[in-house]
Amino acid sequence: MEHKHPLCPRFEKAVELLSKRWTALIVFQLLNGPQRFAGIEHSLPNLSGKMLSERLRELEAEGIIRRDVYPEIPVRIEYSLTDKGQAMAPLFDVIGQWATDWIPLPSEAGPE
Amino acid sequence: MEHKHPLCPRFEKAVELLSKRWTALIVFQLLNGPQRFAGIEHSLPNLSGKMLSERLRELEAEGIIRRDVYPEIPVRIEYSLTDKGQAMAPLFDVIGQWATDWIPLPSEAGPE
Repeated sequence: MEHKHPLCPRFEKAVELLSKRWTALIVFQLLNGPQRFAGIEHSLPNLSGKMLSERLRELEAEGIIRRDVYPEIPVRIEYSLTDKGQAMAPLFDVIGQWATDWIPLPSEAGPE
Repeated sequence: MEHKHPLCPRFEKAVELLSKRWTALIVFQLLNGPQRFAGIEHSLPNLSGKMLSERLRELEAEGIIRRDVYPEIPVRIEYSLTDKGQAMAPLFDVIGQWATDWIPLPSEAGPE
């Protein structure tokens, strides 16, 4: 009985958000700075363009990312994290620490 | 350009694990201590028994939870976190902090 967390609706909502496939990795990629659609797509090769569009729209609706349109020719569209999105950075530090401590590198793991 | 994380395969694996629907909430519930199937099921009312069995099996295979069978009559089966699972506790603290800072309570939010 080391922990006793109340199941707050805000907490549930946060977990639900993060539990959507690709959401966390898209936010993580945007921690590198503003990026164009093709840049994010390139950094996550297993994610389809269709799924990426959908996730970007959802994250924009949640106020986690911002979509900026620059009226150049051709038009330039960039995605970046809002303050709410930037505030997720510590989460990735904690996940990274857990992964380092507990997940073996593929070369260290036996065949599954 | 505030962050520049390398996309480590261990990190990707950790995010993939956590991105499975219900996984994080099941681990979170088990932070309260060992529980029987019905107890976890009761604490997550929107999760079906079938899905819960599946997730418990996956988490056991990943070494995150342990399934203990007590030879009583009737037999008692309890699920609990391994050290690897307990080590996820800080993650929930960070998610909880982010949710408190950035997600409005349902009563504060406007209609969607």
